[in-house]
Amino acid sequence: MTDHPQIAVSTVIFALRETDDQALPALWMPLVRRIRAPFEGHWALPGGPLGIDESLSEAARHNLKATTGLAPRYLEQLYAFGDPARSGDQRLVSIVYWALVGNDEASRSEADDNVCWFPADALPALAFDHQLIVDYALWRLRNKVEYAQIAHRLLGETFTLAQLRSVYEAILQRPLDPANFRRQMAASKSLAATGEMQSGARHRPPRLYRYVEVPGTTPNPWA
Amino acid sequence: MTDHPQIAVSTVIFALRETDDQALPALWMPLVRRIRAPFEGHWALPGGPLGIDESLSEAARHNLKATTGLAPRYLEQLYAFGDPARSGDQRLVSIVYWALVGNDEASRSEADDNVCWFPADALPALAFDHQLIVDYALWRLRNKVEYAQIAHRLLGETFTLAQLRSVYEAILQRPLDPANFRRQMAASKSLAATGEMQSGARHRPPRLYRYVEVPGTTPNPWA
Repeated sequence: MTDHPQIAVSTVIFALRETDDQALPALWMPLVRRIRAPFEGHWALPGGPLGIDESLSEAARHNLKATTGLAPRYLEQLYAFGDPARSGDQRLVSIVYWALVGNDEASRSEADDNVCWFPADALPALAFDHQLIVDYALWRLRNKVEYAQIAHRLLGETFTLAQLRSVYEAILQRPLDPANFRRQMAASKSLAATGEMQSGARHRPPRLYRYVEVPGTTPNPWA
Repeated sequence: MTDHPQIAVSTVIFALRETDDQALPALWMPLVRRIRAPFEGHWALPGGPLGIDESLSEAARHNLKATTGLAPRYLEQLYAFGDPARSGDQRLVSIVYWALVGNDEASRSEADDNVCWFPADALPALAFDHQLIVDYALWRLRNKVEYAQIAHRLLGETFTLAQLRSVYEAILQRPLDPANFRRQMAASKSLAATGEMQSGARHRPPRLYRYVEVPGTTPNPWA
């Protein structure tokens, strides 16, 4: 056992996927098959060591690119996991980032045999404590205060209310009433109509909305 | 320069203090004077290295106790800071925790000459990137969705509405209208009257409230 803790930087990536065999779109994530001990053959979060000259986010992007080919436009630090028992003989502290990517970004990683996308709520046996890390990431995602900012990461800069509802449904794993959802979103300060319509051949194409940054999430007791 | 990044675990601690020279109570925090290079003589966040057998939170508690004597009832991981330039010759990643302590806990650290409490918004020159870390902690604190859970860390299990308002005022650094604040808090699901009154000789002692855990902070689009 080394006499000092080592640092790894890994990333949890979520993308939204429509699947034929279920009504709701679901959150999917890419995993990498380990080709060496420990946990050889098990699936793991894409990651690797922290380079001596890399910032933490640079290491996250670098390790992600090297293992999956993915280059998400957006990365956010999630949490540092450092239980002494999590990594066997070698003491390893994993600083974990998370990313939300659109299918355009997600599709780039399909080539490699050792990289595979799985539904976030039905993963194979994971190496180390990576299932715990995924569970924590899902918990954090489900407790995000504002979903519009998540939607524009998963869907792009503009989206319809139906697409936004599909994000809520995928995260919350339950169908939502469209009319009720529309009323709720109409009251949201973080959503703005672009004035444009979704392109397509339909007679009445749906309106496109975009996410508007809302300064602070602190409730204003003097408002 | 060592060939691998080292890990330190530090803690930002906030306590609420009344001061004679200002109307509002303010957030104060303890700093430790460095007695060796780099930044010898500068003030720094209490912290130290991660022991090979310690969990991250155990290291935070251990380093905090060793440097300040403080043993907060509550610690939460804040963020990992790892810019390659932040620590000079030695590459050091700091995993930072934060704590909110009551004055009963805070007072224990007064003895040591190399430990001093400062107003969080008027700190001396800090070592390393610790001012950046404090600024980030204050930003996170000011963007907390629910202040009642912060209040019971700073004030204890039960508190009056006036005490809760003093927490908002200290964090937001502005006076709040008592009547308006009372109306706002009456609508808060995370606040419950205990049915008890604040002990004292007053004719009409104020009611005592407690924090109630609210499951999730996700807005319910189907509510």
